[in-house]
Amino acid sequence: MSPILSVEEVNQFVDKVFPAMRVSCLEITETHALAELIVDQDALRPGGFISGPDQFRLADAVLWFLTFGAIGRVEEMSVTTELSIRFLRPAIGQRLYARADLEVKNRRSVVGSVYLWCDDTPRRRVSTGQGTYALPLTK
Amino acid sequence: MSPILSVEEVNQFVDKVFPAMRVSCLEITETHALAELIVDQDALRPGGFISGPDQFRLADAVLWFLTFGAIGRVEEMSVTTELSIRFLRPAIGQRLYARADLEVKNRRSVVGSVYLWCDDTPRRRVSTGQGTYALPLTK
Amino acid sequence: MSPILSVEEVNQFVDKVFPAMRVSCLEITETHALAELIVDQDALRPGGFISGPDQFRLADAVLWFLTFGAIGRVEEMSVTTELSIRFLRPAIGQRLYARADLEVKNRRSVVGSVYLWCDDTPRRRVSTGQGTYALPLTK
Amino acid sequence: MSPILSVEEVNQFVDKVFPAMRVSCLEITETHALAELIVDQDALRPGGFISGPDQFRLADAVLWFLTFGAIGRVEEMSVTTELSIRFLRPAIGQRLYARADLEVKNRRSVVGSVYLWCDDTPRRRVSTGQGTYALPLTK
Repeated sequence: MSPILSVEEVNQFVDKVFPAMRVSCLEITETHALAELIVDQDALRPGGFISGPDQFRLADAVLWFLTFGAIGRVEEMSVTTELSIRFLRPAIGQRLYARADLEVKNRRSVVGSVYLWCDDTPRRRVSTGQGTYALPLTK
Repeated sequence: MSPILSVEEVNQFVDKVFPAMRVSCLEITETHALAELIVDQDALRPGGFISGPDQFRLADAVLWFLTFGAIGRVEEMSVTTELSIRFLRPAIGQRLYARADLEVKNRRSVVGSVYLWCDDTPRRRVSTGQGTYALPLTK
Repeated sequence: MSPILSVEEVNQFVDKVFPAMRVSCLEITETHALAELIVDQDALRPGGFISGPDQFRLADAVLWFLTFGAIGRVEEMSVTTELSIRFLRPAIGQRLYARADLEVKNRRSVVGSVYLWCDDTPRRRVSTGQGTYALPLTK
Repeated sequence: MSPILSVEEVNQFVDKVFPAMRVSCLEITETHALAELIVDQDALRPGGFISGPDQFRLADAVLWFLTFGAIGRVEEMSVTTELSIRFLRPAIGQRLYARADLEVKNRRSVVGSVYLWCDDTPRRRVSTGQGTYALPLTK
């Protein structure tokens, strides 16, 4: 069983290595992660909704956090190998959240599913995706 | 045959409706588009490379431009329905480019393939993807 | 609210229009479907597991059934527009099942997520995917 | 540089380990593969076109052959980790072909793009996709 990683460790790590990500980790376990985008009001798309690329940024981040939870440590060298995202509804709201759930972890990689929603309507998903993070190969 | 759209029309449109995208259109025809990311040095990922989400932003933008070219007009209401991206190599460079090619255009949507590279090495792709833009339904 | 469709209606429809699919519907509601592949022992891949394409066939079928449930009728003219699948573990077993859950239904399409497992181990997913079915446009 | 693999070696290997695949390799180099589905007239979908799952089967096979070409040998233990496919047009025809092109090969995996067409109309693509094959890890 992997050691337990805390939300604080994840956020401190992100602040240090990649502050421009602008995503906060809210929950982390071995099998899920929850995160929130720090919404930049200037980056809203036509119509006032949160852009697809900003949604992708959050989806990618929460899958990174999921990877940390699954392997029990923050790991700068885990990188996205592929991610597919489907946009379901306009993302209109003050806050954007994402939850990632573990599909599988093996020696090479972590696969997870993710969904995003605005404000307090988690059942009204705005996008959903799946992706793979590669783990550094151990010798 | 669709009317021809110019690079200037596309860039003026983007400046007006979505300046935060920070992507320039370089070429546009009915079957392809070429674009460049305005790289934000603060947004580089650990290791100094251009982040996955920034690559996604460019991929999404160039597919949007491809859609404009395919339908012969700028169209704010064409939106991404899905996009999958695969990261092939670290994206290290001063400039990031993307080229999108048309797979199909029908009444409902435009499907395109896209690949990205740094600087003057188009054969050394850093990522590749495919995606779908929905068109507004005409009555 | 859509009329309720029965498992029998779905299976009779499949028998009539596409018997070569060799997939049985086991459950159907407006928001989910459950199905089983009729495993062809001759089509097993090297190592004795169920091949990726056979898994895709089941994933595609259960998403088709989900579409029927979501729109409340069998519909020959609903077609897959895109599907991505991730293979998580070798699929070794006598029976292969898949469950699809609705992500969104709108005028144009149905988006769903799907996962597959062998025998009586639904928590041990062998593959997972997401896809889109286009609906016939009503005039 | 990898040793060159012949079409005959690939087809003999497939006949031996996975005859139910029913796909023939037509061309293979280090960076591309061409293949043809042996179309089963009984497996046609409603409307008389080649089904999505049969198209997936060919796409998956040609990516497998591409992997063999890229690594310079047939390799039973290379397996698909993920594949996304987009269906562009009805696949109506007597013969179905697919071409896969190499996106990247590294220690862990091969990523390729693929497109499919019927009969002698390669520019009229019926589907397109991208996918990843994992390579066995060398010690």
